[in-house]
Amino acid sequence: MRETAEIGLNRFARRGYDLDEVSIVPSRRTRDVDDVSTAWQIDAFRFDIPLITSPSDAVVSPETALAVDKAGGLGVLNAEGLWTRYEDPTPVYRKLRDAAGSEGPPTALLQEVYCEPVKTELISARIKELRDAGATTAVRVSPQHTEQLAPAALSAGVDLLVIQGTVVSAEHVTTQGDALNLKEFIADLDVPVIVGGAADYRTALHLMRTGAAGVIVGVGADSFSTTDLIMGIRVPLASAIADAAAARRDYLDETGGRYVHVIANGRIETSGSIARALACGADAVQLGEPLRIAREVPAGGVWWDSVAAHPRLPRGGASAPLPPAGSLQQVLLGPAEQADGRTNLFGALRRTMAKTGYRDLKEFQRVDLVIGG
Amino acid sequence: MRETAEIGLNRFARRGYDLDEVSIVPSRRTRDVDDVSTAWQIDAFRFDIPLITSPSDAVVSPETALAVDKAGGLGVLNAEGLWTRYEDPTPVYRKLRDAAGSEGPPTALLQEVYCEPVKTELISARIKELRDAGATTAVRVSPQHTEQLAPAALSAGVDLLVIQGTVVSAEHVTTQGDALNLKEFIADLDVPVIVGGAADYRTALHLMRTGAAGVIVGVGADSFSTTDLIMGIRVPLASAIADAAAARRDYLDETGGRYVHVIANGRIETSGSIARALACGADAVQLGEPLRIAREVPAGGVWWDSVAAHPRLPRGGASAPLPPAGSLQQVLLGPAEQADGRTNLFGALRRTMAKTGYRDLKEFQRVDLVIGG
Amino acid sequence: MRETAEIGLNRFARRGYDLDEVSIVPSRRTRDVDDVSTAWQIDAFRFDIPLITSPSDAVVSPETALAVDKAGGLGVLNAEGLWTRYEDPTPVYRKLRDAAGSEGPPTALLQEVYCEPVKTELISARIKELRDAGATTAVRVSPQHTEQLAPAALSAGVDLLVIQGTVVSAEHVTTQGDALNLKEFIADLDVPVIVGGAADYRTALHLMRTGAAGVIVGVGADSFSTTDLIMGIRVPLASAIADAAAARRDYLDETGGRYVHVIANGRIETSGSIARALACGADAVQLGEPLRIAREVPAGGVWWDSVAAHPRLPRGGASAPLPPAGSLQQVLLGPAEQADGRTNLFGALRRTMAKTGYRDLKEFQRVDLVIGG
Amino acid sequence: MRETAEIGLNRFARRGYDLDEVSIVPSRRTRDVDDVSTAWQIDAFRFDIPLITSPSDAVVSPETALAVDKAGGLGVLNAEGLWTRYEDPTPVYRKLRDAAGSEGPPTALLQEVYCEPVKTELISARIKELRDAGATTAVRVSPQHTEQLAPAALSAGVDLLVIQGTVVSAEHVTTQGDALNLKEFIADLDVPVIVGGAADYRTALHLMRTGAAGVIVGVGADSFSTTDLIMGIRVPLASAIADAAAARRDYLDETGGRYVHVIANGRIETSGSIARALACGADAVQLGEPLRIAREVPAGGVWWDSVAAHPRLPRGGASAPLPPAGSLQQVLLGPAEQADGRTNLFGALRRTMAKTGYRDLKEFQRVDLVIGG
Repeated sequence: MRETAEIGLNRFARRGYDLDEVSIVPSRRTRDVDDVSTAWQIDAFRFDIPLITSPSDAVVSPETALAVDKAGGLGVLNAEGLWTRYEDPTPVYRKLRDAAGSEGPPTALLQEVYCEPVKTELISARIKELRDAGATTAVRVSPQHTEQLAPAALSAGVDLLVIQGTVVSAEHVTTQGDALNLKEFIADLDVPVIVGGAADYRTALHLMRTGAAGVIVGVGADSFSTTDLIMGIRVPLASAIADAAAARRDYLDETGGRYVHVIANGRIETSGSIARALACGADAVQLGEPLRIAREVPAGGVWWDSVAAHPRLPRGGASAPLPPAGSLQQVLLGPAEQADGRTNLFGALRRTMAKTGYRDLKEFQRVDLVIGG
Repeated sequence: MRETAEIGLNRFARRGYDLDEVSIVPSRRTRDVDDVSTAWQIDAFRFDIPLITSPSDAVVSPETALAVDKAGGLGVLNAEGLWTRYEDPTPVYRKLRDAAGSEGPPTALLQEVYCEPVKTELISARIKELRDAGATTAVRVSPQHTEQLAPAALSAGVDLLVIQGTVVSAEHVTTQGDALNLKEFIADLDVPVIVGGAADYRTALHLMRTGAAGVIVGVGADSFSTTDLIMGIRVPLASAIADAAAARRDYLDETGGRYVHVIANGRIETSGSIARALACGADAVQLGEPLRIAREVPAGGVWWDSVAAHPRLPRGGASAPLPPAGSLQQVLLGPAEQADGRTNLFGALRRTMAKTGYRDLKEFQRVDLVIGG
Repeated sequence: MRETAEIGLNRFARRGYDLDEVSIVPSRRTRDVDDVSTAWQIDAFRFDIPLITSPSDAVVSPETALAVDKAGGLGVLNAEGLWTRYEDPTPVYRKLRDAAGSEGPPTALLQEVYCEPVKTELISARIKELRDAGATTAVRVSPQHTEQLAPAALSAGVDLLVIQGTVVSAEHVTTQGDALNLKEFIADLDVPVIVGGAADYRTALHLMRTGAAGVIVGVGADSFSTTDLIMGIRVPLASAIADAAAARRDYLDETGGRYVHVIANGRIETSGSIARALACGADAVQLGEPLRIAREVPAGGVWWDSVAAHPRLPRGGASAPLPPAGSLQQVLLGPAEQADGRTNLFGALRRTMAKTGYRDLKEFQRVDLVIGG
Repeated sequence: MRETAEIGLNRFARRGYDLDEVSIVPSRRTRDVDDVSTAWQIDAFRFDIPLITSPSDAVVSPETALAVDKAGGLGVLNAEGLWTRYEDPTPVYRKLRDAAGSEGPPTALLQEVYCEPVKTELISARIKELRDAGATTAVRVSPQHTEQLAPAALSAGVDLLVIQGTVVSAEHVTTQGDALNLKEFIADLDVPVIVGGAADYRTALHLMRTGAAGVIVGVGADSFSTTDLIMGIRVPLASAIADAAAARRDYLDETGGRYVHVIANGRIETSGSIARALACGADAVQLGEPLRIAREVPAGGVWWDSVAAHPRLPRGGASAPLPPAGSLQQVLLGPAEQADGRTNLFGALRRTMAKTGYRDLKEFQRVDLVIGG
């Protein structure tokens, strides 16, 4: 049983572990790095590296989505971001970058530029642009706007749909009209859906039962997030991943074979953290902020998360520009010119798998773990 | 059973948890933010938000008590503070603010201004002023001066009486004359009494048995407090709240239905901490220092706690002025212009409740908790 | 049973707690501060406050020993320190203070001034000086030099003898001549002996069986000590005190009534830590470094510990001068002019005892404890 | 059983302890420091102190290997380092030192200087030089190059062979040709082999079964290492040592008497950490970075680890020069002129053994341990 603490008389809390509390233990076997595969396949789509990007305007433009595709991962464009609000978002990016102080672009400015309405025709246009370039395409919609915006994406031929909010459940209660019924919505679709974030076993299982191909675990709590400070919500990610992996096993058994992918999202900033997330049971990771050191990103190294633009309750996520550390290719696949775990992210993963003797990601999920140190 | 550690042979200590060790876990359901209520009712008094203020001169004047009332909370004026010692405390506030260095007003000056005796006629006058403005009124008296000062407050028509010291018990032992018998005192009153601070199950239960309507949990240990350094007394607040909530349940059973409110007081500085305190079992929170960023506060952002003025053993609590972050309305209800958890305190609470699927505060006390991360 | 961890297969370590991990919990009773006694009696000697000083040249001169006596505690002069090496140590103090940089006097200078041999006639003279002034007198000798130096102290009429080294055991093994047999030595004496430091139950019990009146617990690890860094020895003090208190109970039972005092020595720097040490089971505390803020101390606020002068393996303990915070009387008994727990050390203890409802120190050893927060 | 945590449903992690979490507890006996021996014998080689050096170019030249030998330890020269790549590495050292900024020599420069191929004739020459000076000789080869480089070392008459990589296993899997079969390789040798690093019981046991005379425990994670950040691999060293010591006992039993030495390698920077490592069960320690404060080291106090020069995935280990603190003799055997645990490393060990009453290293492995404080 998961550890629980009785914090006060008859009031219990589970004990959760963060990724950085958990580490990988090399064991009795080692393997040649050239014999190791980091390939990941979800539905019909195969990737060389287990990466989907955050749907973040700070790092994902159609151009970088394409570069991620070329490097072997999946770029996810935000269907409710700058690229679908503005015909040409370049001046907006410039304004944000110019206004970015040591804590990133001012909240008021973020709120302002995201007031511009989303245009469904731009969703279609961006997807077509990517398809024409030969990339696997994915866009993100929020649960609130899925019914309104998804059709444009689907008719434009998007390959995967990502329905993502800070916290998503399979059961949204409202007295203000109809809520999105995820199960019915997904059943009607031809494309695979990735949905999240979820934070526990039960929510992950319920989301798997909606028919999703993948479930995102975590509430987007990168190191700039203030969700914890503002909402008191914190997801110890190692535990959340392991719980979702248990839901994956149980759902696999319940359905006699449907494998739903677990995608980790949170404070994953180094190659070491990527390895930890996969070791805890994730099938892939969703990265945003770590990619901003790539030369190609549209915001020039500035970072903000979409929740930082919330009109009444902004929840962190902005920062000053970081100088580029290399091309996106280098950030993802090396070679590294610094020993800080921020470049050659997936080359390092491959080496960790070799040092611990594993051949592929599925095997690597069984690696020995240790807490402490 | 609560975790205990054997710190040495046969000497045990309970394990306690602080609020910031405990977090809220979203679960299988989400809810529309507009379907959520943060209302709180104690005795006949209903509040839109579960807030009583600390009886702190730094943040509570008659004017701000009124503003808190308008925002839906309860302002508590200190019946032993500057407003009842001075006909016009404005010059005193100015002197303190002018003398405030990086560690707030000098201890010696605080000691000096609090030498001025309390005038019972000013207690009456302040209460009438608030009643005339239509506010729900509350004043705080210390246990030592309750018998001397409470009559003035009661005859002026105060709505709630707060009897509060750092540590209060239902059984004060003295050889120096009669001690206040809380049970007899409260039984004779027509107005509801809130009493505290208490730190454990047993004290909370005994205080509930005095007939109090609410019990304050915690020893006023905000982040400027040095009670820990000076007295070795520390109250892990999450555990203390949960223990007091257990006392509330047991007392409810023992009396066949008297519900005594648990009000959390301590290092609660962000909306996240407010959510945590309520999630651990509190019915409301008592806030002082977090309100000093409101434009209306009388001390211009300087903070001190009444124990900082103790003549022989001052116990921390003073700080330099913080610039205002908005109106009291904004601090409590938003909108937030910063993503730091210090404004829109109760709007954020409402959103946390929505993200975790709860409708009201009583339900929200059952939300899942996690330790770690 | 004490918690143990299996750090590796079949290798165990006990879990120990430091003083600052343990806190005092107020409970169902409070008491008037004037009804509380902090008196301590060891053998025939009664003290108003449970304090013996460290035998530290930085804070103890004959003059300050007298001042400690007047304030109600016991000053311990080092029989192997500057006052017994130099007829007039004033120029030595001046040299050390003048040479003190940000890390205190240079190690080389400390080593140099302690090369001067100890003169037994100065031991006698210092004791007589104190006796003539009417003070209870105590000197410290090291185990290695006890047989050589104690006679001078005893014939000069010292009241208590303190035999103290970093680590002392009842069984010292040597092939280089005879070791001090503590049991035989103490049996022959007429004055009570305090001996230490000890770090665990068994050593404390063995030292009690030597006939000592008091056992010092801890290895002198104040916050300037580097014993941990240099020797890998660390004594979690809360646990060590509680273990020694268990030894005290067992020895009391074994002897049918001999009560040996437990005196805590280590990182005890604030009134809160004093309260914690006594709450864990100590009968008194031994303080050195916290007294250096008294105006009367001979080294003008510079601090060093005698082990800092070791010729081959100095072990920390030196620091720059701290400006005085008041007289020794104020440091020990108040009033405090700062809220930092460093003055009014024993007035604060009295108040903690009042807030938790205890009458005397022996009762206070039963106060509730909590870990965490 | 070792503590395990269920980090998520059905996913377990062992709890590991770092050296600095574990401390030594003095107990019922003390001993004269002159009666204590720190001698260590492996195979036919006897050392006064339980020290082998890291095969680090920053601190080991033929000259310093000789000085370590004179001080009673074992210097290990890197057979794949600067001394075997360059006839005269002095200009390379100068270039690296001159280019060292606050984070040591630039990664690019390290990569460049290590591009120069290893010359087997230089391996022979360096060993002969040391043998001629009368020192016990040891060189390190990596597992990948053992078959290619070891013959030169062996035919030059090396005394001990160290086969060391970050992570070494007894079972290396490759599809790219033949892997080194450690068991067969070692069986064919006349000289004792030390092999590592290993991180757990099983790997240590398997490496013992290869016929090695000693197993290195740890992955070289000194305080400049970024293996953790980059690969997610972390070895809580106290636990790893204790586990390897258990493997040593089990292998001793399995073979009816073959004793394989456990050599600790990791963040061991102070004499306190050396004592801790031995107390946890190590027979000796492997030190690199702590030696760079010796006046004789070839890189003038600059530090880098060989993995910092990796062409695609450098993994930390470089730092700015530290000023010398004394001769190698002083660093190892004292006297100390600073109280920081960085000089008189093995004199301090001897004193720790004396204070805890132990006579030799084998006995000292049973000393009481405590966690916390």
